[in-house]
Amino acid sequence: MASPLWVAAAVAWEAGKPLVIEEVEVAPPQKMEVRLKILFTSLCHTDMYFWDPKGQNPLFPRILGHEGGGIVESVGEGVTELAPGDHVLPVFTGECKECAHCKSEDSNMCELLCVNSDRGGMIHDGKSRFSSNGKPIYHFLGTSTFSEYTVVHVGCAAKINPRAPLDKVCVLSCGISTGFGATVNVAKPERGSTVAVFGLGAVGLAAAEGARVSGASRIIGVDMNPNKFQLAKQFGVTECVNPKDHNKPVQEVLAEMTNGGVDRSIECTGHIDAMISAFECVHDGWGVAVLVGVPPNDAVFKTNPLNFLNERTLKGSCFGNYKPRSDIPGVVEKYMNKELELDKFITHQVPFSEINKAFDYMLKGECIRCIIRMEH
Amino acid sequence: MASPLWVAAAVAWEAGKPLVIEEVEVAPPQKMEVRLKILFTSLCHTDMYFWDPKGQNPLFPRILGHEGGGIVESVGEGVTELAPGDHVLPVFTGECKECAHCKSEDSNMCELLCVNSDRGGMIHDGKSRFSSNGKPIYHFLGTSTFSEYTVVHVGCAAKINPRAPLDKVCVLSCGISTGFGATVNVAKPERGSTVAVFGLGAVGLAAAEGARVSGASRIIGVDMNPNKFQLAKQFGVTECVNPKDHNKPVQEVLAEMTNGGVDRSIECTGHIDAMISAFECVHDGWGVAVLVGVPPNDAVFKTNPLNFLNERTLKGSCFGNYKPRSDIPGVVEKYMNKELELDKFITHQVPFSEINKAFDYMLKGECIRCIIRMEH
Repeated sequence: MASPLWVAAAVAWEAGKPLVIEEVEVAPPQKMEVRLKILFTSLCHTDMYFWDPKGQNPLFPRILGHEGGGIVESVGEGVTELAPGDHVLPVFTGECKECAHCKSEDSNMCELLCVNSDRGGMIHDGKSRFSSNGKPIYHFLGTSTFSEYTVVHVGCAAKINPRAPLDKVCVLSCGISTGFGATVNVAKPERGSTVAVFGLGAVGLAAAEGARVSGASRIIGVDMNPNKFQLAKQFGVTECVNPKDHNKPVQEVLAEMTNGGVDRSIECTGHIDAMISAFECVHDGWGVAVLVGVPPNDAVFKTNPLNFLNERTLKGSCFGNYKPRSDIPGVVEKYMNKELELDKFITHQVPFSEINKAFDYMLKGECIRCIIRMEH
Repeated sequence: MASPLWVAAAVAWEAGKPLVIEEVEVAPPQKMEVRLKILFTSLCHTDMYFWDPKGQNPLFPRILGHEGGGIVESVGEGVTELAPGDHVLPVFTGECKECAHCKSEDSNMCELLCVNSDRGGMIHDGKSRFSSNGKPIYHFLGTSTFSEYTVVHVGCAAKINPRAPLDKVCVLSCGISTGFGATVNVAKPERGSTVAVFGLGAVGLAAAEGARVSGASRIIGVDMNPNKFQLAKQFGVTECVNPKDHNKPVQEVLAEMTNGGVDRSIECTGHIDAMISAFECVHDGWGVAVLVGVPPNDAVFKTNPLNFLNERTLKGSCFGNYKPRSDIPGVVEKYMNKELELDKFITHQVPFSEINKAFDYMLKGECIRCIIRMEH
């Protein structure tokens, strides 16, 4: 039986206030849980979203962070698939391998472990494994990687090749897999096809990387911020469109550029107007649009149903439709054999002690991914 | 060069008025056209729709009819794939075999010959091949099968097995293929899955037949008219739901009946509320909904985009995604080898002289398909 550990963690005490690095107690892993030593983590917009005072369901104090890479330190009762020393990526959505979703070839929305941002404790007993001076600190997305050690459900830890550099592949535990998988697993563009990507942040650039790997001949980036266009070219984006530059809906602009519409589109902003444009810009007969960006709860998707009857398809995707434990090790291998490029997504690095700088970089729109080194 | 023919045709002189059987002149087929001797035709709701005074784009006088079976009588310039004596099904949407849609594996929306209800003449010269006392009579959907002879573009004539009984397989030239194909080509239910069908008319029953052939374990019929439930059981429908019997949205009723949602749904009514229900009733993670029914032009499809992000798929289908010339001969073979049942769709028969009775049967909701015998 493992003992409690006292470790450094970046605690979000209040919405919108800088994180504070504190000593917290990390309880031993319980039934079907593992305790991980986090070596690297990165900051994703979703951390910002739940840290921001406008975020939904604020739970504080909380340890944020859900993109990370680490090593199993100890395992709880019933864990047979992982052992101390294994290299893993903690993932915000899990895979129990038992439910109808896990048994379906199409779904990754595990009944037990599917993403749940409202939950602040562990599934086993509803309690937190983090505490400070005896008071609990909430978990975040079942991962809480902004801590030297964390506890996750075994179904949320993908065991990967131990030779994979964790300071690079840690970005696969959320955003990059989300965008890349939306293209290669869901949109599935054929070689030579035309792909539009809405939103040129990390997820959109990863969707573009998926289009590049799939052999798309044209990759059209759509963003309201033209500062992103230069960088996007490094990700295989061949043309950029700013909807603000046109006095007609961007779906019409794209249709004119592509003789009737793109073959595939991937929406990575979560803005409802972009969702509608991303659907309506695909070609009739064969076009497929994939929604990735998460909209506000009260958003309403509206379109003329004839757009569907003209044989367009609209799908949504969560975490690139990857099952974390079954599929993410294979994505890591794609990086190892140089099929998938990851290094270009990593634009900044900071030591753990300067984690708040990562928030600044993202707020300024300067970075794609900032790696936070835990410096053990 | 063929000569004009003087034949009996049922002319719709005015919206909503009984058809009048008259002698009309049928000109010889021009470039890439064939002239067909129609042996059997049937009445479809779409004929009613364009005959009704409320129908869109009224063009009168017109020869309606688009489900039929016949024999090639003569061919125009450039026709090499068909010869006099060939058995064919004329189809309201065509296949040129040259355009991007025809070359796509996914689309059947031929750029040249895709369904166009506004067109009253032939593509070659914009003129009608029908006339009465020297005045032109408009074509309908490029088929106009309510005539002993008609002229169609070669791309709208599917050459079929000459041993196939035309009085049965003629129903494959529209409604039955539309519903059956929407299930087997687009929804693609796996063996053992649960399928909901919205609307239990001919198209919906054909969608149910597709689910039966696919090995669905539950086929749930949804209709506001409970008189249709008894007959639906003969088409493999295992359970029926009348939305009027429930005080909550029918998608919630279906979700409760099926542990979270059906695996596939097919919408065959064209009512916007049914379209939304058909989408929202499919299971998250893997559910696929297919829209078939044609809505009014001003309909708006509305849903919470989270319904997509939870990994549901929405597609539309036209003519069951069949390419008429390439695929329909194979559907006829499915009937010939008893895989697909057609006879149960044919509930009524009338001689050509009594064609207006077919309209009465359909108006009363009494029939699925009424075959009209041309009695040569």
